[in-house]
Amino acid sequence: MEEFFKSHIRTIVDFPKKGIVFRDITTLIKHPEALKKAGDALYEFSKDMGVQKVAGIDSRGFIFGGYLAQRLGTGLVLVRKPGKLPAETFSQTYQLEYGEDTLQIHKDAIEPGERILLHDDLLATGGTARAACELIEKAGGVVVQVTFLIELSFLRGREKFNSYDMKSLVVYDSE
Amino acid sequence: MEEFFKSHIRTIVDFPKKGIVFRDITTLIKHPEALKKAGDALYEFSKDMGVQKVAGIDSRGFIFGGYLAQRLGTGLVLVRKPGKLPAETFSQTYQLEYGEDTLQIHKDAIEPGERILLHDDLLATGGTARAACELIEKAGGVVVQVTFLIELSFLRGREKFNSYDMKSLVVYDSE
Repeated sequence: MEEFFKSHIRTIVDFPKKGIVFRDITTLIKHPEALKKAGDALYEFSKDMGVQKVAGIDSRGFIFGGYLAQRLGTGLVLVRKPGKLPAETFSQTYQLEYGEDTLQIHKDAIEPGERILLHDDLLATGGTARAACELIEKAGGVVVQVTFLIELSFLRGREKFNSYDMKSLVVYDSE
Repeated sequence: MEEFFKSHIRTIVDFPKKGIVFRDITTLIKHPEALKKAGDALYEFSKDMGVQKVAGIDSRGFIFGGYLAQRLGTGLVLVRKPGKLPAETFSQTYQLEYGEDTLQIHKDAIEPGERILLHDDLLATGGTARAACELIEKAGGVVVQVTFLIELSFLRGREKFNSYDMKSLVVYDSE
């Protein structure tokens, strides 16, 4: 099944900048069968986890995040880049290779103790998703699982999730 | 049903800038029943339209776009802000109240003659969604329907879609 997904993921060299090998999911999601199988497989990861809300990371995390919330019968929470959420937010700043970035979540997004599935399309170094975990916890949630469509395992992002149940559908162990 | 949806949409004054009354869907999508009913109602709009692909507009259009593609059994295409799509794109620039903006679509996103459902969360003046229609057509698609969760009818964006089948779930006729 992983090979099936890989056959629908396009590789683009030097995007968004020189030296980066980009894994492009647009060729997977435009394909009805690949989209369906990916949705089914992500749902299988989470269906028995007692998830009460799904959190999707801005913006490709919304693609399957919205679907998973519907299928799991939960609500969806958005973890967004600064300035996008209109009400009061918690913020979390994290380090990038060069510089830093910030994510936000609405203060009223999550009820105390709610069991949250965090989803994003891609795990690279893990800084973004780890910051999202911290935001969910600030907002009172419990991260019961973190799932990704793609994991770039050679970047060792997984090490940032030792204390979480973390799963990915497709693993690339080299560029 | 419209009143049910409205009861879950939060109104925020002066966001993103002074004088704008912002309709916030995060309170709707975090609510499992409201999310489910909105997904069901959007699906009802489109289920008999012979849709072959869903196009979602960056980024809140991905939330229900991904779900609708799954439920309709089609693929999903992303209409994105500049610099986000890694392969060759078509671009469309459009006017805003002050200045202009641009959207892009992958050149290989759509097969010739494919029947496309375009979805976004909100119709305001309609510039963004109209530009997305033009991009879909440039890429060879036929826009068979355009749907929105929310329509701000007093901004008369609907007039830009006279030649399309356009539907919205919740209409606000004043700020």
